[in-house]
Order: sequence, then C-alpha cells, then structure tokens
Amino acid sequence: MTSRPAAPRRPGLPAPGQPAFVALGSNVGDRRAHLEAALVALGATPGVRVAAVSAAYQNPPVGGPPQDDYWNAVAELVTTLSPEALAARLHAVEAAAGRVRTVPAAPRTLDLDLLSCGDEVCRTPALELPHPRATCRAFGLAPWADVAPDAVVPGTGATVLAHATRLRGREPAAFAALRRVALLRVAAPRGARPAVLPDAEALAAWRARGEGTVGLVPTMGALHEGHASLARRARAACDAVLATIFVNPLQFGPTEDLARYPRTFDADLDLLADVGADAVYAPTVDDLYPAGFSTHVDVDGPTAGFEGAARPGHFRGVATVVAKLFARTRPDRAFFGRKDAQQVAVVRRMHADLDLPGAVVVAPTVRDADGLALSSRNRYLTPDERARALAIPRALDAARARAAAGERRRDALVAAARAVLDGAADVATAYVEVVDPARFVPLAELGAAPALLVVAAKVGTTRLIDNEWLLAPGDDA
Amino acid sequence: MTSRPAAPRRPGLPAPGQPAFVALGSNVGDRRAHLEAALVALGATPGVRVAAVSAAYQNPPVGGPPQDDYWNAVAELVTTLSPEALAARLHAVEAAAGRVRTVPAAPRTLDLDLLSCGDEVCRTPALELPHPRATCRAFGLAPWADVAPDAVVPGTGATVLAHATRLRGREPAAFAALRRVALLRVAAPRGARPAVLPDAEALAAWRARGEGTVGLVPTMGALHEGHASLARRARAACDAVLATIFVNPLQFGPTEDLARYPRTFDADLDLLADVGADAVYAPTVDDLYPAGFSTHVDVDGPTAGFEGAARPGHFRGVATVVAKLFARTRPDRAFFGRKDAQQVAVVRRMHADLDLPGAVVVAPTVRDADGLALSSRNRYLTPDERARALAIPRALDAARARAAAGERRRDALVAAARAVLDGAADVATAYVEVVDPARFVPLAELGAAPALLVVAAKVGTTRLIDNEWLLAPGDDA
Repeated sequence: MTSRPAAPRRPGLPAPGQPAFVALGSNVGDRRAHLEAALVALGATPGVRVAAVSAAYQNPPVGGPPQDDYWNAVAELVTTLSPEALAARLHAVEAAAGRVRTVPAAPRTLDLDLLSCGDEVCRTPALELPHPRATCRAFGLAPWADVAPDAVVPGTGATVLAHATRLRGREPAAFAALRRVALLRVAAPRGARPAVLPDAEALAAWRARGEGTVGLVPTMGALHEGHASLARRARAACDAVLATIFVNPLQFGPTEDLARYPRTFDADLDLLADVGADAVYAPTVDDLYPAGFSTHVDVDGPTAGFEGAARPGHFRGVATVVAKLFARTRPDRAFFGRKDAQQVAVVRRMHADLDLPGAVVVAPTVRDADGLALSSRNRYLTPDERARALAIPRALDAARARAAAGERRRDALVAAARAVLDGAADVATAYVEVVDPARFVPLAELGAAPALLVVAAKVGTTRLIDNEWLLAPGDDA
Repeated sequence: MTSRPAAPRRPGLPAPGQPAFVALGSNVGDRRAHLEAALVALGATPGVRVAAVSAAYQNPPVGGPPQDDYWNAVAELVTTLSPEALAARLHAVEAAAGRVRTVPAAPRTLDLDLLSCGDEVCRTPALELPHPRATCRAFGLAPWADVAPDAVVPGTGATVLAHATRLRGREPAAFAALRRVALLRVAAPRGARPAVLPDAEALAAWRARGEGTVGLVPTMGALHEGHASLARRARAACDAVLATIFVNPLQFGPTEDLARYPRTFDADLDLLADVGADAVYAPTVDDLYPAGFSTHVDVDGPTAGFEGAARPGHFRGVATVVAKLFARTRPDRAFFGRKDAQQVAVVRRMHADLDLPGAVVVAPTVRDADGLALSSRNRYLTPDERARALAIPRALDAARARAAAGERRRDALVAAARAVLDGAADVATAYVEVVDPARFVPLAELGAAPALLVVAAKVGTTRLIDNEWLLAPGDDA
C-alpha cells in the first residue's frame, strides 16, 4: 500500500506513540476545506497518525473584531514527536494555510492549538500543556468530548467529558450556540484494497506472517463512517489493521432482519482501502460454524434487560462469534463502537472472563451532522422517518443538558428524554434508562461513577438504539 | 531439575521424535523388577523418552520347555533414534539384564521386542517392522491395546484395538488366560518439585519465559497413576509440562461432593516431581473467577444424557474452566483421560468450536491391577465396596468379549454388561449404553466407526463411571 508509510513492525504493545489532541479552527473562506487540508497535512507528518476527528461545530466568534462564524473540531493523534516538535509542526501547517498572525482573535484561515500531548504538564513561555484554555471554552470542549470523552486532561485528574459537562452547567448558552455542521473527511489517497481472507486457513496464513501488533475491527459489513473511525483508530494504534465482515446468523432472532440485512461488500472494501486496512477476514457461515458446531458462550449480568430482553439469544450470538473472532485473529487491540453500549458491556465482560487475548478498545459513537448516530440500519429509514428519528439524539441531549445543570435523579433525567420522544410522531419508545455502563443495570441517581442514558425506539419499522454519557461528576459531585 | 536431561527448547510442534512401541517380557526371577529395570534403562537412553506403559499381564508360556509364567507389558516410547539404533539398544538392555540367548522360547530374565517404530514397514533379515508376530499374540496385543488402542499398526491400516479385538474373537481362550497383575512403575529418580504458580500473573510470567512446546495436564488434584500417565505422555511429547490443580466449583452440583472432594496438594507435588512436570498452576477460586465473573460456555450435543443428565450444570462448569485454562496456558498439547469419556467429547467439541489453541490428546484409562479404573473418588470406597465395584470392569469386559465374538446388537451387548452388574450386591446401575464417542449418542448396533460402552453405577454412596472400547471392526465388519 504505497499511500501509507510502512509501519515499523514491532512485537507486542504498546502503541506506536502517545495520544495528542489538537483543536482545529477556521473562519475564513472554505472552512471545511481548511480543516480537512489541515488533517491531511497532519496525517502526512512523519511520527504523526490521525486516529480520529470530531464532527465540525459551527459557533459564533468569541471576542475580536466583527467576523464570520468559526468551524471547530478536535483531532486525536498518535505521535512519537515531542510536544515541542508537534507544536512547531502545527505552526508550520498554519503558516502553509496562509495564516498571518495579527491581533488576537482575528479572523484566520486556520488555527491549530495543541490541547494535550500524552500526560505532559508544562508551563513555559514557549509551551503550555495542557492548553491553558482547553477546559474553559465550549467550542473546544464539545468536540473534544465527542472524540475522547474518557481521556483524562493531564494535571486535572478529570476526564474531558467531566470538564465538558461542568462547563455546560456553567455556560449552557455557549453550548446551545454550538451547531454540529459536518463530518470531516480524514482523507488519505486511496490505498490498495485490503487482502480478502475468505476462510480460517487464509486468516491463519496472514496472521502467521505478521510480527507487529494487530488491530481488529469486527463488523457485519454495510460499513459507514462509524466503522471507518474504528479502523482509523486501529490504524493509528497498531502495526496492522484486520477488519472482519461477517453477518452472524447466531445473533439474529427468527423474526429479525438477517436476510434483509444490508450487504455492500464492494463498497466496504473501498472504505477499508480509504482507511488503510491491511486485510479483511470475510468468512462464510460454514467456515465459522462448520457442521456439528454446538458451543455457545453466555454472559449473565450485562445481558439482562434492554436489548437482551428485546432480542432473546442476541447476546449469546454476539458473545459466541466474538469469542471465536478473538481466538482466530488473536488481536493486540480490538475496536468496538460505543453506539452498541450493551454489546460493549457484554464483550468486555466476556473478554475478561474467558481470558481472551489483547485489549478491548471502545470508541465513541460517530454522529451524522444532524446528530443521528450512524448505523447500518439507518439505510432502512425513509427521508421522513429519518427526520423523525432525530428525536432520539435530541432526547439524549435534553437529558444531558439537565444533568449538566445539576439534575441527579434518574426519574427526572429519563422524563426529560421521554418528553422529547413522546413529542415526536411515529416514534415508539421501547426504553429510556440511566445505566451503569459496565454492569448495565439501572441507576436510581447519578453518582461519582460514569452513567449512560440508553434509548431504544422504533421509527416506522426500524428499531434504533442510541446512548450518551451523562455527567460523570467525580470530585465535582 | 537435574534428574532429567534438559529438553532442547524448540519452537512449535511437532513432538521431539516419533512413537515406538516395545513389548517387554520376563519369566525368570523377580519379573516385576526385571520389567521395571528395563523401563529405567529405556528412559535413560539418549533420544528415548518413556511416554506410557501398560499394566503387566501374567500369562502361561507359549511353547518351549516347561517354565514359569511370563509377565508381559508394552511401553510407548517417543524417540529420535532410527529403528536400527533403537533395536540395538533393546538388545543391549536385554544383555545387561543377564539374558543369554539359547533356544527359542527359552526362559529369560528379559525379552524386549520392537513392535513398531513410527510408520516404518521393513522386512530385512536384520530388522522386521512391525514385529512379525505383533498382531497374532494375545499377550502382546492386550497390553498394546491398553496403552495405545488408537495407534495404527504400520502397514495394516488397522488400529491396535481392531487387531486385538479380531484376535480375541479367534482366540478367546488366549485372552481369558491373561491376568492383569500389576501396574509397573516408570521410575525416574525424583526430580525437583515443580514450580508452583499460584495465580494468573505467575502463570503468565512462566508462560512468557518458555520457547518450547508446552504440554498441559488439567487436574482437580488428588492425583493418581492416571494423572501420572497423562503427565508422562506430556513429558515425552513436549518441551515443558504444566499441570493445573483446581477443584472447580462450577462443575459440582449443589448436592455434590465439592467440600468433601479429596485435597492432597503435598502428595500431588511429589507425584508431579516423579514424572518430571515443570510447573503446576494452582489458582484460587478468586484468581480464576474474580468478583463479577458471569460468563459460561455451553456445549449442546455431547452433553445431552448420561453425566449431563445426572449432573445438571456439570459440563457447563467443565467447559467454562477448560476454556479458561486453554486461554491462560496456551498449550501446544493438552492431555485428558479417556476415563471421563463424555468430558472428552465435550472438550473436543468445544475446543474445535471455540478455536482454542493447541491439540487435545486423549490417553487411555489406567486401571489398577484388579481392573478398577483409577479415580480420585475411589478413595471414598470401603474395602468391601471396592471389591464390589469390580463388577464394573467385569461388566465392560463381558461386553467386549461378546463384541469380539461377533455380537453387533446394542441390546445384546448392554444385556451382557447388565447381567454382571445386576449380579453384584450393592451396585446400583445408573446407565449402561453403547455410544458414539464423539457425539455421545446411543448406537443401535456396532458398525465401522468406533464405539464405546459406557457405565455409571453407584457403589455404596460413591458414583463411579467407566467405559471401554468395543469392537471397531472397520474393514473387518
């Protein structure tokens, strides 16, 4: 794959570098183009990989002369550069974009701020880390919390999500003024299509070749930007990226949409080429479940209720196929999306309980510009249904706003979300609940531990699920 | 461990050598001492490891002058020697034992015959392989079928068991004259005790050190010669031997004998030292099942009926712990005893279905001199109960004799075994059945595929299980 510098093959973990976060802003000219060009320039920097980028948010200028609205986003990098070298590189990219430094807060083609680099805490005239205004500007914190809610802001002991929620509680208007406007493309010239491994034998041969770390991205195909974001994180963190495409019959109930589930193999390969995946294991049902197959993995606890109740046997099917995929691919890291939050809880539990290899990495949900969480099932929605489905992210946001404002009671938070859902035509709510993300049990009120608001609703004939973090107040509680 | 030459550490399979089988006989002086000394001499030969030895059988001399009864046994070796070199070594061991070659079939202190060596088929004046009388002498075939029923006799396309059964059908009197008289000691000067690995961390550190192949012997402690035979086979086939000792609460029912199950850790370490095990992983319940553990592995199919019906949840517990032990120890070969035949079927099924690492090796049941299959639960038997329990191996043998004589009908074979069990006082039969060893479903009649007779019976308060191969007629059918 000539489009990507060959990763040095190194045995075992850790990742090739440390995470760094960069805020990107532009309010002159084609703002999307400036931000996307900056991502290309960052990705082309030796020692830097772009792991993920938030959506672009449009927001009014803060101070300075009268000027256009800004577009802002935050990128997660994995880098082997020192903070100083990375900061210098950011300045160079700004200069190449035609930025001229005049007065503070003046209009600019491109603004790049290093928010944090590894665990570095440093306060010198030349470099301040984390960025001195990293935790006090809505237009920076909101996209940062999109891309890395769990990351701890160095020197503060609190996560990006906790900072964002705290600030939202203090400055609700600043957050309300933010408007998510676009998904940014993390462009790389399209590489070669990944090697297609049709069976266990081909997979074993591929696996036996490599000596570096392997990042696994298990999918059922019908790939979208959510999958791309997982693969991109794998690309940044591992020496080789292996996706799997398998529509697992075990996890579909008899009345579910197995036959109808979208299959877009050719487009999937293009998407995987775009993100630089090395190989895709796309087995047949017979390859994964040969004649006589009769073993199942069951997880108690987090499978109770919610999707587990609505879809009997679903998590048994998920646990069984994931256990097999871990055994066959032996990943160093496996990437799952937070969108399927209960699945994440089940996979994490099983991964620990069965001593499966490697680490489970959970990446935040990717939302379309209108806020709808990306899902392969969104293809089933008519334009009208899709518009109605936006009640789901709006409901999540209503509850988040209440939590940020100090609400701790489950009943009030659920009611805030339900009110939005109940106000939407043709949206049949299956459940709304506040849960512990690991055990997936309802919480009566928010405490010091992380809490998720989870929603399932049927829009037309399509069942959608979504979730969002509520306040994780920690020492703020 | 100074008592054992350091095995060359080699990555991956195959085993260090090929299997060879040697018949041992003696009818002069202390016959047991001669046979055991021969095993010591064989084990001390560079390039030879003793993997297993059958029980000693006493039998009348066949031809020759009037003389004492013989003791006969068969040893399984793993060797890197050529057949010629091995045969020369056997002659040297005979000579060292004071054997003087006089007339054929004369009394002798020690007789060593090379039955087979790898797949070698050779007919020269200096060497004939397999041994020309290997498949036509009861006193050789019976112990050979004890130690390696599944091995194929080179050049014949049939297993040792098939040859033994065929010969028994032709010469029932020769088999009836054989008397199992002793378990032979495969002596090695006691080595150092194995390293005790008390938790997953210590295990991982030990596992990370080694570069050779690892043989796993999973046990619940209370070790006996059956376990020793598994460890010895592991020792012969792998660079390192790892036993596990864990009384797995998951596989005991609420009314079963978990608390009462024998725990003999100190004696277990001595036994493992005797067989040259390198390490023993002896985790606590908390180490294997930390707080929050909630995953189970279920195998359908071979768990139905028999022990699965009598002990609800038992095989779920077995499958779960074995899956974890495979994941934690990552063996190249794992050794299980045929005594627990249904467990073997379950483990094999799960091992294939969950793509677990390494190979499953199943070793024949070890029986005491009186025929009782070794089991940790035999400790519960009073002397009187133990005598009554011999009805179980007698029942198995009655059915085997019928099968060897040509009986194919399940009903007749089961009736033959039941008649013996029903004639025994205080033996409550739970089941007697003819089953397919892989699927563990009843067979209406013997066909070309292997078939097991399985028995469970309660003697006093102790539930015992046992099984034996019936005819596997193959092309003889």
